[in-house]
Amino acid sequence: MADNLILGRIDNINHLLSHPNFTFIPIDLSLPVKVHELFQIQTFDVVFHFAANSDIQASAHDPARDLHNTFLTTINILEGMRLFQVKEIIFASSSAVYGYKPGVRISEDSGNLWPVSYYGGAKLASEAFIVSYCYMNNLKSWILRFPNVLGGRLTHGVVYDFINKLSKNPASLEILGNGQQSKPYLYVADLIDAIFYLWLNRRETINCFNIGVDSQTTVTSIADMLCEEMGLRNVEYLYTGENVGWKGDVPEFQYDLSKIHAVNWKSQYTSDEAVGLAIQKMLRN
Amino acid sequence: MADNLILGRIDNINHLLSHPNFTFIPIDLSLPVKVHELFQIQTFDVVFHFAANSDIQASAHDPARDLHNTFLTTINILEGMRLFQVKEIIFASSSAVYGYKPGVRISEDSGNLWPVSYYGGAKLASEAFIVSYCYMNNLKSWILRFPNVLGGRLTHGVVYDFINKLSKNPASLEILGNGQQSKPYLYVADLIDAIFYLWLNRRETINCFNIGVDSQTTVTSIADMLCEEMGLRNVEYLYTGENVGWKGDVPEFQYDLSKIHAVNWKSQYTSDEAVGLAIQKMLRN
Repeated sequence: MADNLILGRIDNINHLLSHPNFTFIPIDLSLPVKVHELFQIQTFDVVFHFAANSDIQASAHDPARDLHNTFLTTINILEGMRLFQVKEIIFASSSAVYGYKPGVRISEDSGNLWPVSYYGGAKLASEAFIVSYCYMNNLKSWILRFPNVLGGRLTHGVVYDFINKLSKNPASLEILGNGQQSKPYLYVADLIDAIFYLWLNRRETINCFNIGVDSQTTVTSIADMLCEEMGLRNVEYLYTGENVGWKGDVPEFQYDLSKIHAVNWKSQYTSDEAVGLAIQKMLRN
Repeated sequence: MADNLILGRIDNINHLLSHPNFTFIPIDLSLPVKVHELFQIQTFDVVFHFAANSDIQASAHDPARDLHNTFLTTINILEGMRLFQVKEIIFASSSAVYGYKPGVRISEDSGNLWPVSYYGGAKLASEAFIVSYCYMNNLKSWILRFPNVLGGRLTHGVVYDFINKLSKNPASLEILGNGQQSKPYLYVADLIDAIFYLWLNRRETINCFNIGVDSQTTVTSIADMLCEEMGLRNVEYLYTGENVGWKGDVPEFQYDLSKIHAVNWKSQYTSDEAVGLAIQKMLRN
């Protein structure tokens, strides 16, 4: 595993470091020379490429973040794969590639993919290069479009932010937007299950799948669940009012999951259950 | 006008250099610092971004060409526009973004855009970033997907190659592929007319259009037309045999042009006429 530990935390993998089949390499995958060295010293059968700037909000004023950490990481890895004959890549793409399509259940073969954030742009640009590298070098790719994912080791995002804010001030909670932004939240164990399931069971040149959950949860519901779990009553919600949390935010979206359902995969947890589990685990940590 | 003169030729703009409203700046747009300087010293109302590695064949063994000259030129220009408040970009995209979709008339809102060349990947990746920059910075973009374009000032491509080969050896002609690769060829004057027409008449945030011609021409027909125009008889055609000319080549494609026809634009010349005109002009030069 390689990570620059900018958003990732070594604490999150402490329990793996002593495992004989696990190696952690702290490098910045946005640097071509470093990635080339990595492919020189290690032999890979397959690359799970999840490296990215996953903090969309932070890149809004600094598109270079997504250019370097979301897009150029992909290019460097593809070049490593091309030069060192690594034939399979599983790529963490995102619902952000679809842009803002309210009221539509979005399927993988939708057209007009017009991302509204630099993050979405960088993910879609990554997909474009992955596909061309697959055809030019006989690689296989799994382009997996993740929804919002929650678990006990969050480093940013709405649950993480709310816990921080309420720890500082349990009397009131600032909520970006109007609280009605509604998204499907997937529990991380479900995500990992889907990734391995698709990798093992689908073997086309390009295997593009939405991974998600049918249900969704509003931002206000997340606040409600968190307050209850923290035993807080009468917390005053201070909405910032817009229908989007920040520039580049997509206030609502819903996947069409027919394709992944057709290959017999469904998430174990609903969106609300995922939020509940993540809250419990985050509070325990 | 800015160009690195790697594929472009100063001879092609000699007649413009003395025009009072024309400035030529010889810079490499793949270098961020140079592009930043360009935006510092010049004021732009609009950017026509046509800079790219337009030689798909050449990049097949060197994807860095398309990363730098096709994709990073776009990023550098978008950053210049963001920082210096330039609000409109006309982008030379390509049929290559669609990948290989035989037997289908491809419309702008097609899904599964799976480019088979690094060039197509870099063009699609450029589109992705252009769209996200538009939404994040209130820009307008014209994403114009060009077909094969011909004119009297070619620097590469099938007509150019055939003229070179026949000039050296008028007895035989090597034809990459089986000669049945069939594509729509647009005459350059038609292309320029379409670009300005769409820029002046369509003013959405994202204006994405196929620009093309309904008819198409096979590679063997091009050879036939060229031999006739050069007065060569009984030239032996030596086919290399595959159904694609080179890795990353798309042997046939046809646009759905409903969208551009619906705004009342049609090309003046057919594909065969475009080939004929380009051959005449190339031979005269």
